[in-house]
Amino acid sequence: MQKLKVVTIGGGSSYTPELIDGFIKRYAELPVTDYYLLDIEEGKEKLEIVGKLAQRMVQQAGVPMNIHLTLNREEALKDADFVTTQLRVGFLEARITDERIPLKYGVLGQETTGPGGFMKAQRTIPVLLDICRDMEKWCPNAWLINFTNPAGIVTEAITRHSNIKTIGICSGANSMMMDIAKAYDVEKSAVDTRIIGLNHLIFADRIAIHGEDKTDDFINKLAQGSASNSLKNIPDIGFTARFAQALHMYPISYLKYFFLNREMVQTAQQDAATKGTRGEQTREIEKRLFELYQDEHLNHKPKELEKRGGAWYSDTACSIISAIYNDKKEIHVVNTVNNGTTPDLPDHVTLETNAVIDKHGAHPVAYGRLPVKIRGLIQSVKAYEELTVEAAVTGDYDTALLALSINPLLPSATIAEQILDEYLDVNQRYLPQYAKEAK
Amino acid sequence: MQKLKVVTIGGGSSYTPELIDGFIKRYAELPVTDYYLLDIEEGKEKLEIVGKLAQRMVQQAGVPMNIHLTLNREEALKDADFVTTQLRVGFLEARITDERIPLKYGVLGQETTGPGGFMKAQRTIPVLLDICRDMEKWCPNAWLINFTNPAGIVTEAITRHSNIKTIGICSGANSMMMDIAKAYDVEKSAVDTRIIGLNHLIFADRIAIHGEDKTDDFINKLAQGSASNSLKNIPDIGFTARFAQALHMYPISYLKYFFLNREMVQTAQQDAATKGTRGEQTREIEKRLFELYQDEHLNHKPKELEKRGGAWYSDTACSIISAIYNDKKEIHVVNTVNNGTTPDLPDHVTLETNAVIDKHGAHPVAYGRLPVKIRGLIQSVKAYEELTVEAAVTGDYDTALLALSINPLLPSATIAEQILDEYLDVNQRYLPQYAKEAK
Amino acid sequence: MQKLKVVTIGGGSSYTPELIDGFIKRYAELPVTDYYLLDIEEGKEKLEIVGKLAQRMVQQAGVPMNIHLTLNREEALKDADFVTTQLRVGFLEARITDERIPLKYGVLGQETTGPGGFMKAQRTIPVLLDICRDMEKWCPNAWLINFTNPAGIVTEAITRHSNIKTIGICSGANSMMMDIAKAYDVEKSAVDTRIIGLNHLIFADRIAIHGEDKTDDFINKLAQGSASNSLKNIPDIGFTARFAQALHMYPISYLKYFFLNREMVQTAQQDAATKGTRGEQTREIEKRLFELYQDEHLNHKPKELEKRGGAWYSDTACSIISAIYNDKKEIHVVNTVNNGTTPDLPDHVTLETNAVIDKHGAHPVAYGRLPVKIRGLIQSVKAYEELTVEAAVTGDYDTALLALSINPLLPSATIAEQILDEYLDVNQRYLPQYAKEAK
Amino acid sequence: MQKLKVVTIGGGSSYTPELIDGFIKRYAELPVTDYYLLDIEEGKEKLEIVGKLAQRMVQQAGVPMNIHLTLNREEALKDADFVTTQLRVGFLEARITDERIPLKYGVLGQETTGPGGFMKAQRTIPVLLDICRDMEKWCPNAWLINFTNPAGIVTEAITRHSNIKTIGICSGANSMMMDIAKAYDVEKSAVDTRIIGLNHLIFADRIAIHGEDKTDDFINKLAQGSASNSLKNIPDIGFTARFAQALHMYPISYLKYFFLNREMVQTAQQDAATKGTRGEQTREIEKRLFELYQDEHLNHKPKELEKRGGAWYSDTACSIISAIYNDKKEIHVVNTVNNGTTPDLPDHVTLETNAVIDKHGAHPVAYGRLPVKIRGLIQSVKAYEELTVEAAVTGDYDTALLALSINPLLPSATIAEQILDEYLDVNQRYLPQYAKEAK
Repeated sequence: MQKLKVVTIGGGSSYTPELIDGFIKRYAELPVTDYYLLDIEEGKEKLEIVGKLAQRMVQQAGVPMNIHLTLNREEALKDADFVTTQLRVGFLEARITDERIPLKYGVLGQETTGPGGFMKAQRTIPVLLDICRDMEKWCPNAWLINFTNPAGIVTEAITRHSNIKTIGICSGANSMMMDIAKAYDVEKSAVDTRIIGLNHLIFADRIAIHGEDKTDDFINKLAQGSASNSLKNIPDIGFTARFAQALHMYPISYLKYFFLNREMVQTAQQDAATKGTRGEQTREIEKRLFELYQDEHLNHKPKELEKRGGAWYSDTACSIISAIYNDKKEIHVVNTVNNGTTPDLPDHVTLETNAVIDKHGAHPVAYGRLPVKIRGLIQSVKAYEELTVEAAVTGDYDTALLALSINPLLPSATIAEQILDEYLDVNQRYLPQYAKEAK
Repeated sequence: MQKLKVVTIGGGSSYTPELIDGFIKRYAELPVTDYYLLDIEEGKEKLEIVGKLAQRMVQQAGVPMNIHLTLNREEALKDADFVTTQLRVGFLEARITDERIPLKYGVLGQETTGPGGFMKAQRTIPVLLDICRDMEKWCPNAWLINFTNPAGIVTEAITRHSNIKTIGICSGANSMMMDIAKAYDVEKSAVDTRIIGLNHLIFADRIAIHGEDKTDDFINKLAQGSASNSLKNIPDIGFTARFAQALHMYPISYLKYFFLNREMVQTAQQDAATKGTRGEQTREIEKRLFELYQDEHLNHKPKELEKRGGAWYSDTACSIISAIYNDKKEIHVVNTVNNGTTPDLPDHVTLETNAVIDKHGAHPVAYGRLPVKIRGLIQSVKAYEELTVEAAVTGDYDTALLALSINPLLPSATIAEQILDEYLDVNQRYLPQYAKEAK
Repeated sequence: MQKLKVVTIGGGSSYTPELIDGFIKRYAELPVTDYYLLDIEEGKEKLEIVGKLAQRMVQQAGVPMNIHLTLNREEALKDADFVTTQLRVGFLEARITDERIPLKYGVLGQETTGPGGFMKAQRTIPVLLDICRDMEKWCPNAWLINFTNPAGIVTEAITRHSNIKTIGICSGANSMMMDIAKAYDVEKSAVDTRIIGLNHLIFADRIAIHGEDKTDDFINKLAQGSASNSLKNIPDIGFTARFAQALHMYPISYLKYFFLNREMVQTAQQDAATKGTRGEQTREIEKRLFELYQDEHLNHKPKELEKRGGAWYSDTACSIISAIYNDKKEIHVVNTVNNGTTPDLPDHVTLETNAVIDKHGAHPVAYGRLPVKIRGLIQSVKAYEELTVEAAVTGDYDTALLALSINPLLPSATIAEQILDEYLDVNQRYLPQYAKEAK
Repeated sequence: MQKLKVVTIGGGSSYTPELIDGFIKRYAELPVTDYYLLDIEEGKEKLEIVGKLAQRMVQQAGVPMNIHLTLNREEALKDADFVTTQLRVGFLEARITDERIPLKYGVLGQETTGPGGFMKAQRTIPVLLDICRDMEKWCPNAWLINFTNPAGIVTEAITRHSNIKTIGICSGANSMMMDIAKAYDVEKSAVDTRIIGLNHLIFADRIAIHGEDKTDDFINKLAQGSASNSLKNIPDIGFTARFAQALHMYPISYLKYFFLNREMVQTAQQDAATKGTRGEQTREIEKRLFELYQDEHLNHKPKELEKRGGAWYSDTACSIISAIYNDKKEIHVVNTVNNGTTPDLPDHVTLETNAVIDKHGAHPVAYGRLPVKIRGLIQSVKAYEELTVEAAVTGDYDTALLALSINPLLPSATIAEQILDEYLDVNQRYLPQYAKEAK
């Protein structure tokens, strides 16, 4: 039998059982013979807990998949076929300061599109690019399937600063399709839609059920509040019916951070004062998950994992890996290089959109000009993302300041500077690239 | 049972048995209940011969497809689901003058990319746009699958001057994939490639067999002459090995008209003097085909039809109709609007490229910048095509003269003018749009 | 002597003495023989006050310029050579509600780039397009020099919805150059810079004094606070030194509304509560100006006019008219159609940038790609502007709601809707285009 | 007095007296204190003849310009302000083989846009880039004013492969304006026009005399043959009246090589057989010129120099140098980087168009989309030019073959290969970059 080696970096993550579950279900079409879970010294304990659960799951399923646990990057990467990443530099503690610091200034921390995402990118991109350099040595032909957030920004850093083939993924679009499916009481496979935008900043148009156009109908449902429009990790504040009709596209819930900014800031401040920030809540969920994972009788993915956010994410990851492996030419929503998909963004940036997936990777479907109503926001956030990547790679303070200042969630460049200075201060140990410069 | 109505305009064409054969083979997935063959008074005799053969074929196959023969456009189009066109305004006689006139001036007549194609477009576009106006009345939601040549130019005229949904098709890309399949002794379905360019002006790169990259290898075969590189209707003059290697893409045989122009002109002149022009040869083939078709014992597509050129064309047409009907999201090579597929061409023009086909039509896969080595030629021919469409719609002499003058196959604007004047003279009865202007 | 007829629509404006002054000073090169001041019935009294002052100024200067006062549009426009506009639909009262309504919601009213500008555009564009239709009848070859705010948006409406030749102007760039000149104690003519952006959203780079590059030096001055960076009508809150260095361009003061939004909102709220909004302050200034204008001994432009904001605006207007009239090929900063100046904006939108002015109009100097640091904001505001024009022309509520919602100064689509509804309510009499639609 | 140092590389050229004359005439505004004529050992004799004439001219004019003759590049370039180039690698002998070899195959040699230009670029670009490297050392802030042909291609090579500031110039546009001036019996300064295209491939539209539009009128003159349309070095074959009207732009005479290719080939063949190729004729003219130059009584530019082609070229060169030196912001037609001037060409390529010239260099006036009628040809030749630069820099045979094959003047890739092989063979000593590759 041929070997098929998959590696997950950040293998000790609470998400891993999702992935194990996904690979087990697809074993017939995607026979992963060797699955490496790689983590770092500080993550060793979690790695072992998750690893043992993984072994129980595989055994229970009866598939011949070897689970390897390791702290040695070379051993993990050597001749790998697919590498997935789900790492969190600085753990949830860093996320919590990412969220708390901006809130003091009345700004959303938000770990993806907000300053939290900016800061996470500064910590994460150097580590990811270091992994890429090792991949260039040990598995230059492997695919890097990145779902480390901010996924769009991280994927752009990889496409611009390494030679490793990569696709960035996110469970967001999948969740939107699940919402649509639920509204029509059909399977997700019956839903067809067209997605355009950036990671965590996508819009769906042309919504169809079993090939029949339901766009107007679904927008009506949204306007009437009879279709859900939210991810578990995002507060459920609604658009007005009139705005939903005017927009006439289905926006991912993260877009509320932009279109309902003031309301979202208030909610975030209340939540932080009462039930804690999303990072703090997640820390609790994680704690409970790891208690569960240690149960030696548990041999399947526990239901509680769905609360974690990013459910169906293994579905996204495993099905894209399978589409590449089997040269399927299936359409998935992924983060990949624009390359003309829309002339309203530079050729070299990443965007999130429908793409044909085959052995050569992701080939986005041409979209043409963006509708004016969503064009400016997408372009504006993209400019922020480009500077965020540049700051992460160069460690240049001015670039970092400009990046944060032009993020539409920031109400002032002076506040951006204050947040940035606090951020750099508490994250010092994770930011070698900024060390050279004393402000 | 639901009705599925398909109409073929120019139903009396010798190609029709191809289509009948294609629909019969796909009946399970594409149950055409009513197939209308529409023709004009002058084509009545052929329509009846072909129609009877069609009925014998259907009967032999035992599928419940009703064949209707008619000269009444309203009857044919009323509530149609798919309309295909394969008409030839002026019959083969017009094609023969299209070819013979330029040859007197040492210029290729060529019924697609050359002056012949220009002239055919002038005769054909007004007729097609008239059909579109009738479709807007009688079947506004039908798909128009156009394979009337010059297919790219005609499709551009339809997309710019009517509201009818359309896809332009050509058997050329299919033939290229068959050539590749033959070189590796595999089924066509094992071949994967990426196509970019304009109709009859396409290049393939990324050639894969069963998902494995064979680009370099296939280019070697081409350079060594061990892979065939020609359509039946194009003289077999080869590129030098060095040029084949330098180009490093697989060009459709029609590209020899551009890259080996002088040699192709000489061959065309010799052929015209000996075995006749392609139009004259086709007239002979057609004659023999219709003799065969009249044989009351014939109840299948005769083998001789393959010589006609455009074999596999029914394959292309029927499989695209099925992909739309069944919302397949399959990838086909079609003529459709650029819409950002490559920023090196205007957004609104048609190009021929890989596209995802579903119920909403053709969604091209983004290609990005064209390689410089093929960019100029494609842009240059596209400019000619845009003016050709404009001339056909307006009947403006100056636009016609400019169109022909900038066609790269024309060696001089003065010769273009002489050819144009002869053309307009002999085609007068087919060109009402030019009537208003006395030169 | 040849006639040269200039018309100012909104002739009763307090600005008019600026223009008269400008034409008097340039009489030798721009011999305006007939200057028409046109106004509407409600503006008759002011028109007469201003008109008499104008006549006294001309008499004092001894130039043979005939001042005509009229309420008849046909008489004014008939065979005009240049038409300038400085009208204010709804007078300062409308401006004051434009400012006061958003402030209730903690949003800047701002009559140019903010919701105030949006509302002013809704009132103004229909009137301007009506003027254009009259110009198409009575002076189709005249130039329309527009300085009615929001100048960029209004100019875009004219270029997209009429055939009248137009250039949009604003005193902003001129003020910036005056600031630079002051910092180096030189004449404005010694200053050279390159401007890019949208009206009230421009950035200067490549700052030179007598041809010598002073960009770094001037940025240092800005960062150290030793160069002024503000217009009279904009609160003097500064950027931090670090941000000024990071941006490394000279932003027009209006950009503080975006880069220091939170601070500017607070100041605007304080000002509104103490000294009144800018509109209210202007109403006072205007009152005093008209008292002055009535003084029969006044025969020159009074110094107090400079407080009004928009000083040097006559300089801008008259020098551009002279550049067209004399086919000067001089470079001015104007609002004109992009047409490729930067590929980061659509071809058809207006932008504000350096352009060569000659008899054929404004020919912008190609700028190329926008720096990422300013690209997103410019693109974002441009999308708002495009929808603002579309809403003003169609009176479509949804388009209006989208326009306001995507304006970066608005913190929420729900607040945008509340402001819009109040706006439409109080402005009803000025918005015939919205009448058709009952929300 | 301040020093102003100008260097001419290829100082021994017969053109030099033109330049001397130009600098003398402009001495008041452009006080060249030191003028270095640099040449190579093989050009020493000519350099001395030309140098002595230059000194006599300066003396006669009574301007304090020091003429320096040198074979030492460092001495010449050290601290230079402006460097001009007019060199010819391989002398006229190379030009003659450039012309003669293609003619054998029925192809125009043509030293600018044809294969002759391709070959000249291969010899010249490495030398020019070597000069640029020396300039980067010895005069990094100097301007390189290039009029070495093919000027557009050479300028593109410099802008892409060095950091030296450069403008490419050509006398062609100037000649066109002289033709227009002659047709209206006015001074050239009264003519205004807009130029777009590539070097030796430009079109003029918007033709005005004293600011008044004369486009239609001048096109009529062209069509009736009453305006001349030709440069001294290009055979006088005319367009038909109908084509002149249809094109409705004023094309530079070199465009006849493309629009009247067949006729131009025949004429070139006849000329080659009778009066010799252009290179051979030039060799005769040059011989006579140098005889004249040796006359010790000659102390001004001789009239015979005008026959040489490229008259007014000193006018172009000196007036552009003066526009830079004096920060004039004048409009000139130059070769410079596209940078968005037209989105129909890549951002980074050079084009020839109207540009504002100031101390910072050339800032092209935005042109927008190219008219379709000229777009394809310009794009097609630009693709050839890009590959020509790449071939010259890399010495890659395949790139060279592709470049020649896609040049629209070549009738076949096989013939391109034959010409290329002969070319590389006879030019071996000038092509070190090709040495590494044995075909």
